[in-house]
Amino acid sequence: MDRGLCYGDGLFETIKVFQNKPLLLDAHFSRLALGCERLGIASDGLKDRFKADISDLLAVNPHSLAVLKLTVTRGAGPRGYFAANNLRPTTISSLSIAPDFTHKAMEGVVLRWCHTPLSINPLLAGIKHLNRLEQVLARKEWDTADISEGLMKDADGFLIEGTMSNIFWVEQGRLYTPELDRSGVAGVLRQTVIDIAARQNNPVLTGRFTETVLKKAEEVFICNSLIDIWPVRKLEVMEWQIGPHTRRIQALLKEEYSV
Amino acid sequence: MDRGLCYGDGLFETIKVFQNKPLLLDAHFSRLALGCERLGIASDGLKDRFKADISDLLAVNPHSLAVLKLTVTRGAGPRGYFAANNLRPTTISSLSIAPDFTHKAMEGVVLRWCHTPLSINPLLAGIKHLNRLEQVLARKEWDTADISEGLMKDADGFLIEGTMSNIFWVEQGRLYTPELDRSGVAGVLRQTVIDIAARQNNPVLTGRFTETVLKKAEEVFICNSLIDIWPVRKLEVMEWQIGPHTRRIQALLKEEYSV
Repeated sequence: MDRGLCYGDGLFETIKVFQNKPLLLDAHFSRLALGCERLGIASDGLKDRFKADISDLLAVNPHSLAVLKLTVTRGAGPRGYFAANNLRPTTISSLSIAPDFTHKAMEGVVLRWCHTPLSINPLLAGIKHLNRLEQVLARKEWDTADISEGLMKDADGFLIEGTMSNIFWVEQGRLYTPELDRSGVAGVLRQTVIDIAARQNNPVLTGRFTETVLKKAEEVFICNSLIDIWPVRKLEVMEWQIGPHTRRIQALLKEEYSV
Repeated sequence: MDRGLCYGDGLFETIKVFQNKPLLLDAHFSRLALGCERLGIASDGLKDRFKADISDLLAVNPHSLAVLKLTVTRGAGPRGYFAANNLRPTTISSLSIAPDFTHKAMEGVVLRWCHTPLSINPLLAGIKHLNRLEQVLARKEWDTADISEGLMKDADGFLIEGTMSNIFWVEQGRLYTPELDRSGVAGVLRQTVIDIAARQNNPVLTGRFTETVLKKAEEVFICNSLIDIWPVRKLEVMEWQIGPHTRRIQALLKEEYSV
């Protein structure tokens, strides 16, 4: 009867654990709070519940590299879409082994385009809710290990993101990323990159872009909380070198983590 | 780890049980099979698993009026959107008490418009998947008992359906309902009404319509598997009488059930 299962009525966060410490935890909690507000899920006490779970999980089983997944649903309730205000949210915390992606961060990756479109809905854009069928269908479009990620466009054909990552590119020294006010997930790493770039006096430019912008890009990279930053070497017929902006952002992210 | 909870990666059916018999069961299984095909969920053996569940549930606890809910997910799998082909789908069958809606079917109901838009995605349109946040948000727009249902438009402003029902209307004696190839859930009752009307030599006309069509409507009704057919008396400033077409379809549906 949990509405998370019944309707995808909830949110989640995927957090990298490095040397037994969850990275960018406050930023993940902020995005979760934004999601709760958007969906009208009661978020009071939520952070404390998760923090207690996290210290238990990390104490029992220390990890040098792991993934922490936090899920919150609106809770269990009677059948039907109507959500009473008095439901107690369900929280689920899990810790699992994370693959080491250092080689991809160093050597770069190959992408493809996905045909599955991302729908446009400003109410659901940006937050990391549990309605992820579009990503599932997009990720089903390939199953070869040489492709590390697929890029998705919205229903109007604008470039949005990867199935599990956000995208940035460099043109004439300026960083760009798609606006995510109508579709997509505004990743915690995406915001971290935006913040890092702003502090370097090179603010990221956001907007609606079609795929043709990538033809003029000097550098391209994708990011998420788990993979950090992967330079993109190839997207179907387009190819790029791994450039200085990407390497600088990678280095600055590493500094951010060690704070 | 079930992908139903993680990503809404699954489907469900809500079936009315009358005098301990599930109504329109074959039609529900057909829609479920279509959904499995669309999402690439293995459906072999699924019907038999559910049929065994159903006879167990109905044998243990006979009901004159109940709701049978069947849920299938892609199954439990490792973290991440990628869905391996060898997952065993999870099935969940439950039987619960159904409210008696006879008075609403007799006397009609009052509707309102919802502001929450339905996104457009032909890959997900029509099937009854577990990504239902749009319906949840739309249903949160009101909590007064005098409103029985809210109508939703797609992102382009076309009339699609109610949060939990499909809509039909009569204009100059002809039945109409929105095309659901880009948004919405193609209800089993909707298809049943379409089939009944076709057998009466009054085929339902489908298409893309804006809300203005309702101004010219002589009769309006909504339907789903659980509520059957509710005549609509009022939608904000518009009002209708309960007319002969609605009453005829209600009577023919009753015959359909008794077969």
